[in-house]
Amino acid sequence: MVELILVQLFFLILLAQVAAYVCKKIKVPPVVGEILVGIIIANLFISGYSLFTILDLSNPNSIPVFNVFSELGVIFLLFAVGLVTPFHELRQVGRTAGLVAVLGVILPFFSGLALMFLFGRTTLEALLIGAAMVATSVGITARVLKDLGVMESIEGRVIIGAAVIDDVLGLIVLAMISGIAQGGTLNLADIAVVAALAVAFVLVVIYISALLPKVRTSSPVMSALKKRKPRKAWSPLPLALLVCFGLSALASYLNLAAIVGAFLAGMLFAEFRDVWPCEEKFGPINELFVPFFFLFIGIQVNLGEFANTAIIVLRLAVILVAIVTKFVGCGLGARKLGARSAAVVGVGMIPRGEVGIIVASIGLTSGVIGNDLFTVVVAMSLVTTLLAPWLITFAFNRRNRPKKMKGVDLRQL
Amino acid sequence: MVELILVQLFFLILLAQVAAYVCKKIKVPPVVGEILVGIIIANLFISGYSLFTILDLSNPNSIPVFNVFSELGVIFLLFAVGLVTPFHELRQVGRTAGLVAVLGVILPFFSGLALMFLFGRTTLEALLIGAAMVATSVGITARVLKDLGVMESIEGRVIIGAAVIDDVLGLIVLAMISGIAQGGTLNLADIAVVAALAVAFVLVVIYISALLPKVRTSSPVMSALKKRKPRKAWSPLPLALLVCFGLSALASYLNLAAIVGAFLAGMLFAEFRDVWPCEEKFGPINELFVPFFFLFIGIQVNLGEFANTAIIVLRLAVILVAIVTKFVGCGLGARKLGARSAAVVGVGMIPRGEVGIIVASIGLTSGVIGNDLFTVVVAMSLVTTLLAPWLITFAFNRRNRPKKMKGVDLRQL
Repeated sequence: MVELILVQLFFLILLAQVAAYVCKKIKVPPVVGEILVGIIIANLFISGYSLFTILDLSNPNSIPVFNVFSELGVIFLLFAVGLVTPFHELRQVGRTAGLVAVLGVILPFFSGLALMFLFGRTTLEALLIGAAMVATSVGITARVLKDLGVMESIEGRVIIGAAVIDDVLGLIVLAMISGIAQGGTLNLADIAVVAALAVAFVLVVIYISALLPKVRTSSPVMSALKKRKPRKAWSPLPLALLVCFGLSALASYLNLAAIVGAFLAGMLFAEFRDVWPCEEKFGPINELFVPFFFLFIGIQVNLGEFANTAIIVLRLAVILVAIVTKFVGCGLGARKLGARSAAVVGVGMIPRGEVGIIVASIGLTSGVIGNDLFTVVVAMSLVTTLLAPWLITFAFNRRNRPKKMKGVDLRQL
Repeated sequence: MVELILVQLFFLILLAQVAAYVCKKIKVPPVVGEILVGIIIANLFISGYSLFTILDLSNPNSIPVFNVFSELGVIFLLFAVGLVTPFHELRQVGRTAGLVAVLGVILPFFSGLALMFLFGRTTLEALLIGAAMVATSVGITARVLKDLGVMESIEGRVIIGAAVIDDVLGLIVLAMISGIAQGGTLNLADIAVVAALAVAFVLVVIYISALLPKVRTSSPVMSALKKRKPRKAWSPLPLALLVCFGLSALASYLNLAAIVGAFLAGMLFAEFRDVWPCEEKFGPINELFVPFFFLFIGIQVNLGEFANTAIIVLRLAVILVAIVTKFVGCGLGARKLGARSAAVVGVGMIPRGEVGIIVASIGLTSGVIGNDLFTVVVAMSLVTTLLAPWLITFAFNRRNRPKKMKGVDLRQL
């Protein structure tokens, strides 16, 4: 059984590497190549090419393994993003990020709602499509920003901050819709509890990381730690893994995305960057795991589902509205940064990735939407995910000058 | 589903860390602590403590995931061992390693055979116990040598070289016994094919790595590579992973242990140590994966199986013979290194670990041995595995002086 996994690991890494190499040559963001490889694997196998049976990841042993690899990939990616985002720097863009998140939720949600009513769909269907449009897959943007080496720019900070708030808001929207779908009526007390727990979790972790610098300067233990050269015998990696897995699991149990927990865990560790340097340690771990996340976004796409051309107009309309409303909403939220930076933030929030597909899956399994609308959301997630890396790269190259956090007067944000 | 895995990852890493910390304080090799934690998890859960249900790794999603984590742990460990063992240095101890392997197979095998006849067991049973006694789990020794920082000592080289040869010999012994068990007669042609393929695989990889230094000096590509500073954009990690997974899978398909392939892959990369440094990259990956291997040696042990005290004498006799014959056989093979180094090699080959249990499982499922003899082998594997780290640490500290490869006249080996 392990032999098969080893062979599959071999071919998946090989294909991802070839895709990344080709992408580099033809100047395409590598993440696009990895997603396309995933689509090719899934759909060539479905068509039954015997050459690819060894890549049949649907066998009962491979599914859980590669699911975990994929999830760990995006968890480690967001942890690494957190590692370069200490809270005191994130706070400086807090108001802008909040505005970006709120406008980036309101505009797509109500536009999606209106569009579905226009196409004569039911209220429940409209609500679910609206919720799917709210989703932001920050993993894709984080990866592109990392590839471009601009994770520590203002725009990067605004996007990541907004994505965390966006996830909390998206959770509330989804909880409301699930409530309506199940009970028919809105149990506001239940939703309030879900929302309060999620908000409390985020705030408590943020509060702790805001306290850490003070604790460190006043605590004799920490100043002793700082004076002492990092001991070779002691590695911060296990502790980092514990905090990362612990907060990711906690976020999951609170119905937040696991990656929100991972990001917050990274942010906590960012406060100890000088005594416990973790970035170098997570480099190789990320190299190993991260590609699986993007391969698996592609592998979830069944191209056969798009054969139904009856709803092609709806599909195109949803894709267009999803792109435009997220760009405009988030761009407006970030307008204080100047037009070009606002554009970067706007395109950075476009990809729906796996989050859109998760929302649609909930709708499909609970019977709120049928298979036709499910493929609409999958198409929207796929197009926004494949388009965003180009747009982000293009928008960043177009900026007049690289804005570093340090170089700008942050008061005005 | 992924939440549960995250929680289990959290608790497993936590317990492994606590065990390692406690072991350090009471001066016990940390690997012993990790195995004991595994035993505790498995057996406390079996007893039904509700606190531990979250650690129920036997649920259908956890089994394949942690199986793969455990297997990748020992694969990455042996790859890392290969990385510090270039072939030209291994060759210098080749004759000694060969002698260690051969004597370390002959003595335990025939002693095991004789012992079983003494206890009135059948020929088939005796052959299988003999084969289980031949097994060497080099993972445990490699980990202890790494923890002690003596992987690049002569003794380390001899042990690892002997372990590779030992695995090939063990494969042949097991193929013969399986043949007898299934057909009743010995199909020598089939066994010859299995053995020839395994030997050919090892020799081809060794031949390639022996050629590499010559190719490198004569090839313009490689000398260009060497002149150029390692580019930041290009990482050797994906290539290393590909070769590691590829050769591990190939070794598995040839019925060798996957770790033999992983070690050979590392040895290939050792030739490129100057242009493609991989050790630092594999450090954190090993930190993440390796403990799972040792946790899982422990988790496979069901203490309830030892309740049967009827065969306690046989169990103790097998354990004693397993320790003494491997120590004497391998020590004799390494006697040219001097008494103290020979003792290090002797104790380094003692642990049977997962390999002994695998042989016993084959015997159990094919009906060659009953449950009573299975527990005998499990007890032997467990005791030798828990004892070896102490003995190795003790033997190394007792050596008159640390022998480095460079410091000794290697001709005489």
